[in-house]
Amino acid sequence: METLFRYNWMVREQWYRWCEDVPEQELLKVRTGGVGSILKTLFHVADVEWSWIQSIQGKPDFLEDFNLYQSLAQVRALDARFRHDVEGFVLDWREELERKMFDDLLPDGRVRSLAWGEVLRHVIAHEIHHMGQLSVWAREIGKAPVSANLIEKGLVFSLPGRE
Amino acid sequence: METLFRYNWMVREQWYRWCEDVPEQELLKVRTGGVGSILKTLFHVADVEWSWIQSIQGKPDFLEDFNLYQSLAQVRALDARFRHDVEGFVLDWREELERKMFDDLLPDGRVRSLAWGEVLRHVIAHEIHHMGQLSVWAREIGKAPVSANLIEKGLVFSLPGRE
Repeated sequence: METLFRYNWMVREQWYRWCEDVPEQELLKVRTGGVGSILKTLFHVADVEWSWIQSIQGKPDFLEDFNLYQSLAQVRALDARFRHDVEGFVLDWREELERKMFDDLLPDGRVRSLAWGEVLRHVIAHEIHHMGQLSVWAREIGKAPVSANLIEKGLVFSLPGRE
Repeated sequence: METLFRYNWMVREQWYRWCEDVPEQELLKVRTGGVGSILKTLFHVADVEWSWIQSIQGKPDFLEDFNLYQSLAQVRALDARFRHDVEGFVLDWREELERKMFDDLLPDGRVRSLAWGEVLRHVIAHEIHHMGQLSVWAREIGKAPVSANLIEKGLVFSLPGRE
């Protein structure tokens, strides 16, 4: 579990750096698919990750308003604030939390019971999916996307290429 | 590990069904980003998944030629053939395989040592990333994409929404 979170955080950081060379109006431009813009996507994955992890623990959760985070610096600052909470939880993950249940109250009044392990995998897949969308939009603006490779990021204990 | 593979197989099947209502020329149309077309993406994820899992086990691996799989039915048939091998491996996954090493010979002659657990997570992330690309292309042709949600797919033991 931790490996995939660390992969996502690393890739997200690489996308933030990628954004540094892109004019802000390109980052905010409304595009086809996903949540609509590059910056909003990065804001969204950080927000959703934090919100799920707060919610299952019964901690305060609020969905941030993207209108208040219209610059790369603001999104990065929000992400850094969230990361503090999220990282502690993920690094403390233990097998016995897999089947701990969370009663999720839906807007229509229904309650769905979700296993913590399922929620965490949902959060992982959610981010990777959105980064795939960024990769298409990157090509649309003529810039190579961040690599989605998980290998050779030093995330596990594999050795880099050698002679 | 198994949950994320089952998630990917389920989402891939949903994309195949999604493709049934889309004209074949749209499926083959070259698009911006990724490997270039919807059908090629589905072919590619099935091919890469099988190839990695064959390779780490030291089993024969060959990269298929997409020119021989230019229809949805052909890609699905190839995928079904591959699934037989892949599913057996994934369902037999055990914790002690995590750190088993695979020496990957690169085209330039270098060898990189990869942990099996890292390779499997790479394969998982690879597919989710490409499905994110499909979701943008789906919107471009005016059709809602397959949901990327992992929750509420019955993959773990969570209960669906109830009153």
